[in-house]
Amino acid sequence: MEYQYANRMEIFGLSPIREVLKLAADPSYISLAAGSPSPASYPVKEMKEIMDRLMEEQPVRMLQYGVSEGYAPLQKALKDRMREKYQTGTDEDRILITSGAQQGIESFAKAFLNEGDGVICEDPSFISALNAIRCYNGARLIGIPVDDDGMRIDLLEEALKREKNIKFIYTINTFQNPTGVTMPLERRKQMLELAKKYHVMILEDAPYFELRYSGEYVPTLKSMDTDGIVAFVGSLSKIIAPGIRVGFLMAPQSVIKKVTKSKQIGDVHTSTLMQAMSCEFLTKYDVDAHIDRICKMYRESRDVMLEALSDIDERVRYTRPDGGLFLWAEMPEGYSAEELQDRMLEKGKVLMITGPAFAATPGRFTNCFRLNFSMPTHENIRRGVDVLKECVKEYLR
Amino acid sequence: MEYQYANRMEIFGLSPIREVLKLAADPSYISLAAGSPSPASYPVKEMKEIMDRLMEEQPVRMLQYGVSEGYAPLQKALKDRMREKYQTGTDEDRILITSGAQQGIESFAKAFLNEGDGVICEDPSFISALNAIRCYNGARLIGIPVDDDGMRIDLLEEALKREKNIKFIYTINTFQNPTGVTMPLERRKQMLELAKKYHVMILEDAPYFELRYSGEYVPTLKSMDTDGIVAFVGSLSKIIAPGIRVGFLMAPQSVIKKVTKSKQIGDVHTSTLMQAMSCEFLTKYDVDAHIDRICKMYRESRDVMLEALSDIDERVRYTRPDGGLFLWAEMPEGYSAEELQDRMLEKGKVLMITGPAFAATPGRFTNCFRLNFSMPTHENIRRGVDVLKECVKEYLR
Repeated sequence: MEYQYANRMEIFGLSPIREVLKLAADPSYISLAAGSPSPASYPVKEMKEIMDRLMEEQPVRMLQYGVSEGYAPLQKALKDRMREKYQTGTDEDRILITSGAQQGIESFAKAFLNEGDGVICEDPSFISALNAIRCYNGARLIGIPVDDDGMRIDLLEEALKREKNIKFIYTINTFQNPTGVTMPLERRKQMLELAKKYHVMILEDAPYFELRYSGEYVPTLKSMDTDGIVAFVGSLSKIIAPGIRVGFLMAPQSVIKKVTKSKQIGDVHTSTLMQAMSCEFLTKYDVDAHIDRICKMYRESRDVMLEALSDIDERVRYTRPDGGLFLWAEMPEGYSAEELQDRMLEKGKVLMITGPAFAATPGRFTNCFRLNFSMPTHENIRRGVDVLKECVKEYLR
Repeated sequence: MEYQYANRMEIFGLSPIREVLKLAADPSYISLAAGSPSPASYPVKEMKEIMDRLMEEQPVRMLQYGVSEGYAPLQKALKDRMREKYQTGTDEDRILITSGAQQGIESFAKAFLNEGDGVICEDPSFISALNAIRCYNGARLIGIPVDDDGMRIDLLEEALKREKNIKFIYTINTFQNPTGVTMPLERRKQMLELAKKYHVMILEDAPYFELRYSGEYVPTLKSMDTDGIVAFVGSLSKIIAPGIRVGFLMAPQSVIKKVTKSKQIGDVHTSTLMQAMSCEFLTKYDVDAHIDRICKMYRESRDVMLEALSDIDERVRYTRPDGGLFLWAEMPEGYSAEELQDRMLEKGKVLMITGPAFAATPGRFTNCFRLNFSMPTHENIRRGVDVLKECVKEYLR
């Protein structure tokens, strides 16, 4: 049989990141490639306790079909937490529970995008989100360069003026993946004004926003949204665990209603037990203390990595993130991160993710790479960065 | 903000079935509307035991990101079981674990369908599968009427001759939803021959095929497939529990590779704990004995329903399924199942699902309805059918 696949399948490959992660499963590698929170951050004891209780007290509810919108107590817990702690969400907003933040992005894209519709994003950005978007709009992404304050707002306005049929701006505005940069308040306000002016929505993806290690909290775009123009994607992967696949979308009721249809045809509903477990953890345990512990751990790891990088060849520029899981480095133009990666593998089996994996505009970032500090031990961060520095030295000679 | 949704969102409403299920959550209703297995069928004790053990012995593996293809031991367990017990699957075939069978169908549709591609299906059929398909091909469904032996093969051939760009045939060929009918071996062979002749794939959706209460086992289409023309969608919802959201797709390696991309952008991977729990249950417990117990329970319920229906007005025709969860009834043309449903709600708060919810061709089956026997108690089956019979009697007078 000769299979005739849909055109959309030509747009994207298997995520290169996930392919590298398969290699990284081999413990003889030092991986600075991960996109994951550290297993040491998982509240294992608490989760075990909770699941035990749930399966004891209400097994049928945990195992029967649930509604597509999500487990109501979890919807409420997330809504309350977002409002009370982050002043995010209004009476008009609703919450849809999704199977990870990825499904929030994918279902939103499915609900809004026709073939050929434009989506503006940071360039570089999170490849799996870009793939979900490409799947529905025939890959019409308009990538806007990023500086130390996130998406460049002057170039955003130019794009909004120039491009037709822009449906939304996709932004990871806090501890961005892959660059680690955060958009300051003033620029957020400008982005919101531009979105209003040009009548486009904003999909604010915030998987890391609670993982801050230094600097001041910056309010979410959603907290400033009085026009129902922002949809907020949240994740429990980084504050509970990623394997549970629970995330959420917060948006005005009418938007949630449509996106719920998208999600419903995707997987009917998210595993009830995983939702209920999340809810119990958020409501009956001290989740803020838990996040503080995670932040303390990651702060140390970030500092170890920044310290190790401090004497790298000065032609390599890198970001100094206030939170999240990553930093981003850039060699001078003309040098290839692929080539550097090959040398690092040869010299010390060190893995990272090279820049093109994050390019919204194909061909960009060949001289860049992303480093993760949440997964490796301090020792492996030091050893990995040492190998990196030696390879940079030889390669840039 | 005025939201501009994608055109595909106009195609389908929120599943009317899931909306009825919300009503059915009120225990003062007698629901013959369910699409669910009975909670009494869940292996609660075993699941609790397994989850305890998994969270004790390998919490990190349970909670960390997994690969999109699925938890390898579960892939193997399903492959072995399908081959050993049902001679289904070849060396060329692979298994993708999906977040419920729904995601298998949706991801397959996303990987194969362009706007305007045709898909042939039974009419009536499973609405959520049809919605997933509609989402990717602009709703070009060619519904083929069903008789007591499933999809009419003469009309299938006519359609294959007549229609352009048919990508696949979607069939629930065993204990079909909603009709309960099963396609016999001879007709399956004919369908396979036709698929080969016209170079179209078959998506064989088999969520109920292990729930047989009478009659002889009929081999799966996939077990007769030597050309890699059949993709098989399986579900653990009916033999373990639906809330865990675990299903699978079995297809040739090259197809699985593409569908894995579809699934990956959907939700990255399926909850690892739910996959591992399923795997342990399939490999370390007597799953066949468990299925026998479920079948015994459902056989009794089916028999109670058939017995209760035996003196219904003879102008109402209904199917006598050998397995699954449903039977299908048809009033004479011109009578409305909606009207009947209203009378049943008024007389005794009895819920069912009316025919149009299953129509591949809009407007069909207004005189039909589906009855579920897996969820209600024997008493509620009798009381519900009594109300139905009285209402039929008055309405058809």
